[in-house]
Parts: sequence; C-alpha cells; structure tokens
Amino acid sequence: MAGPAATHPAHGVWSPALVPVEKNLGIDVARFIRHARWLLDSGCHGLVLFGTTSEANSFSVEERTDLLDAVINDGVDPNRLMVGTGCCAFTESVRLTGHALSRGCSKVLMLPPFYYKGMSDEGLARSFATVIDRVADPNLRIYLYHFPQLSGVPISTGLIDILLANYADIIAGLKDSSGDWSNTAGLLERYPELAIFPGSERFLLDGVNAGSAGCITATANVNAGAIRAVYDAWAGGDDDLANLNDVVCATRSIIQDYPMVPALKYLTARRLSDEAWRQVRPPMVELTAERGAELVRRLDEQGLAV
Amino acid sequence: MAGPAATHPAHGVWSPALVPVEKNLGIDVARFIRHARWLLDSGCHGLVLFGTTSEANSFSVEERTDLLDAVINDGVDPNRLMVGTGCCAFTESVRLTGHALSRGCSKVLMLPPFYYKGMSDEGLARSFATVIDRVADPNLRIYLYHFPQLSGVPISTGLIDILLANYADIIAGLKDSSGDWSNTAGLLERYPELAIFPGSERFLLDGVNAGSAGCITATANVNAGAIRAVYDAWAGGDDDLANLNDVVCATRSIIQDYPMVPALKYLTARRLSDEAWRQVRPPMVELTAERGAELVRRLDEQGLAV
Repeated sequence: MAGPAATHPAHGVWSPALVPVEKNLGIDVARFIRHARWLLDSGCHGLVLFGTTSEANSFSVEERTDLLDAVINDGVDPNRLMVGTGCCAFTESVRLTGHALSRGCSKVLMLPPFYYKGMSDEGLARSFATVIDRVADPNLRIYLYHFPQLSGVPISTGLIDILLANYADIIAGLKDSSGDWSNTAGLLERYPELAIFPGSERFLLDGVNAGSAGCITATANVNAGAIRAVYDAWAGGDDDLANLNDVVCATRSIIQDYPMVPALKYLTARRLSDEAWRQVRPPMVELTAERGAELVRRLDEQGLAV
Repeated sequence: MAGPAATHPAHGVWSPALVPVEKNLGIDVARFIRHARWLLDSGCHGLVLFGTTSEANSFSVEERTDLLDAVINDGVDPNRLMVGTGCCAFTESVRLTGHALSRGCSKVLMLPPFYYKGMSDEGLARSFATVIDRVADPNLRIYLYHFPQLSGVPISTGLIDILLANYADIIAGLKDSSGDWSNTAGLLERYPELAIFPGSERFLLDGVNAGSAGCITATANVNAGAIRAVYDAWAGGDDDLANLNDVVCATRSIIQDYPMVPALKYLTARRLSDEAWRQVRPPMVELTAERGAELVRRLDEQGLAV
C-alpha cells in the first residue's frame, strides 16, 4: 500500500548528511560529495544538507553556501536535497534560502531564530514571514524544524496556524525532532496537508501509518539501506515489515546512547577505514577510541551490521 | 574607597547598547551613534556593542561589522567599547573578533557556541581556543558571557579553568547574566584575577563589595546616570549610597516585569519623543501602547524618572 506518505513532494527516508571536516576544521568537500552520493545510492530518498547532524550551526554562511555550490556543481539532483537555512538573524536565513533557491533547491528546513527564548508566536511568525517575503520566490517550500531540546524555541501550533493562514503554499511540512510521539501524532492529525517527518526511524512506521511523510533521521548516515527497506516493506505491504523494523530500531537504540554526530562519524570512519572521518568541529569532540570500540562491540553482539 | 573594581582595565557601569532599527529592519546607524554617545555622556564607563540587549544575534556578521565601523569612524573611543563576538560557528566568531581588534577594540564579550547543548568543557574550550589561536593577537581580552537562560550553554568553572590554564593573559573577565548571585559570588571567590560583571545593577553593590568589576546592565540604556551615581557613591564612600541604590533597584524591578528590549526601546522612544525607536527586529515584537503606558504609569507612581 502506497499510503499518504508517497503523495508528499518530499517523502520517504531522508538523511541529514554528516559533514566531514579536514584537520584544519574546514569542510572536506570531496569526502562530503562521496558520502552524499553513497547515501543517495544506499536508499535515501533525499538528504538534508545542513541539519543538526551536519553540524550546520557550526559553519558560517559562506561555508554553507560554498558546500551547496560544490554539491550542485557536482551534479547532485537539487530535488533530492533539503537545505537547512534557519539562522538566528533573518538576514542570514534570507541569504541561505535565496542561495538554495538560486541553485534549484526549493525545499528548505528552517529552524526558528533560536537565541532569544520565550518569543511570542507573533514574533516568530514575523521572522519567518520576513524571510519568505524577502526571498519572494513562489517555488520556496519551507519545512519547519521543531527541535526544542537544541533550539530552545518550539514550533507551536499557534505559530504554524499563523504561517498557514498567510503562506499556505510555502509552508510544506515540518520535521519533528522532539522525540515525543504524542506531539508528532497531534501534528499529523491537525495538519494533514503538511509533510511531517519524525526525526527518528523509531517513529517511521507509526508515522507513515498515521499519514507522515517518512522520517529524517541522523542514523541513516550509517544505516540508510536498512531504514529504506522498512519504508519499502511498509509501502509494499511485505510480511517481514515488523522484523525489519525491529532490527532498525535496535540499531538506533544502541547508537543513540552515544553523542550522535561523533558516533556516526566514528562508524563512518570504520566503514571506510578512513580515520579522517572521525574529526568533528568544536564544540563537539570526537568519540574516544574506547567508546567507539564499545559502540561497535555492542552492535556486533546484537548482530547489527552498520 | 576605590575598591578592587577600579583596578580592572574594564570596570564600572557598562551598558549593552540598544540597537535602533529602521522601518525596513536595517540598523539605524545615525540613531545608534547618538544613543551611544548619550550613554557615554550620561555615566556609562563603557558600552557593549552587540550584547543580548543589542539584539546581537538577530543581526548578520556583516551588519555587525558595519555598525562597529561606523561607530569607530565617528570617533567613539574603542577603549570604551566591548564587542560581542561569540557565534555558533567559530569561523564567524573569528571574523567578528578579528574585525573588532582591527578597529582598536581589544575587549570582546564572547558567548559560547550556543546551538548544540550538553557539550563538554573540553569541546567548548576547543571552540574558544580555536578563536583565540586564529585571531592570534596578544591584545585580545575575552570576557566570557554566561547567560544560560538564553544560550542554554553555561560557562562552567571547569571550562574557565581550562581556558585560564592555557590563555591566562587573554581571558580577562566574565559577564554573569544568570541572575543567580550565588553563582556570581562563587566566581568572584574562585577567580579574583578576573573582571566579573553581574548582568544587573541589582548585584552592583554586592558585587563590587565582593570584588566584582561593576555591572553590565541592560537598564543602563534608560537609567545610566542613576546607576553610575550608585557606583560613584560606593567608590566615594558616600552616605547616600543605600538610598541611591534602593531607587535604582526599584526602577529595575519594574522594568524587568516587561520584555526587556521592547520595554527599553519604548522608554527611549518616549524620552526622545521619537516613535521610530520602538521598532525591534523579529523575533521580538514591540511593546504595545497599552503595556508601555502601564510601564510608564508604574514608574511614575513610584516617582522613578527614567
């Protein structure tokens, strides 16, 4: 059964792509492009370029536009990208969003301005509206990014209501990284017109069964094929759906015991036998060899290959 | 008695200067420079350019460097400025900090990278160290900015210890905006070598009596003279110190019942009979006329003139 998920312009399994960095902490463009292509070849319907897992907020506006330029120039399909463009300053969100559109990427994942806390829905709506009005491109499709644990600024239904009342054609969806299924379920019920992505494969099945678009999940960086198999089994009504899903969720539950980005970079370095991949940008620190070995041992003990 | 406060290179009453914006939301440079000069003439020892009250994080890197350029070109003494330069991306912190130094401003107020939460002291120290090493200017003096309610990233003693062990000449002080006097008192006891500024005049007297450098306070934007009078009365051992302090604290306690930046802009617009001053940048919203009138009435009822 191809459910509601498949009807959304963006749907399925998306990965917020890890961004490898060089010893000097600059973005390693060549390694990134290889990783991005591998993710797309391995089962991801699309990639978020500069989500939380991409260490997005640890890179400057220029570093972010430069990488997107390199990816598009390399021939990656802009329709399979969703670009993270939400900054604290709307002027920078305008710049990143305008740049994404200029490179053919109409889908952007937008954090609210996240320094000032306790802002009203009206103030947050003004911020989004200012970006939309200044970018002034009818092709723009915004996916609101709800990640209160990191942003400290929730995307409330009050805010969504204001935005939909004014920009129904522009507000296309929402990524819910709250980890709170009741929040996701409430959004799915209230906004059937939006493409809602839970931020973890733990909620992939519950989500698509309730009308979500799929999931956008960090661990797809190391487990894209298996997560995609769950999605395809669901879409195809396969008998092994539950088993496939159990394995994917077991893998996730081990990995998320570790700092997510350092753990995913550790596993990628191991897969590629390429130690350079372990490097993260401050303020993150690399997973220690001991913790990394422990992570691998725990996955191995459960027979979970990533 | 000129106490320990006066021995710090930066000391006394500092105001994180409000930044006026035009109808198009761009920075109103002319109004800003008039306000900055008025604050310095009214009693502020110095100004923080791009603190929280300046809506710092709502402006792009370019908007921030452009305003500092304008202020310095106008002849404001760079020694009386402390420039906010801490961004989520160290590359942007490097750029803002290097720019400040290039304009003769050696004092910077630095937020930790504030998107990713729960980062280790080691990771945060790496971020500060990367900025210091790349800026590579022995004149740099960093004031760490502890504002956990907004940043979500506290400046712990563990972090300070690491930084002092490696950059004792560069780490000059700390602004404690936690509003938690026990935290400030603990820092004052542990780090007598640092210029510690509580983030409110409520802690000005307790602070300087315990060795703090003074205070950096939002409400100095509307009450600089009176707050400076408290500082001078303390430094001079004047008999009316307690009364002066009571009035200043009463004023503060009323104003902080309102959203701080909109309230201060409202009061500034009223003082100057200049409605343009009320404008804030998203995600903030202006104080309504009703709330503004209420604020003024409450101040008037107590005979508190600002």
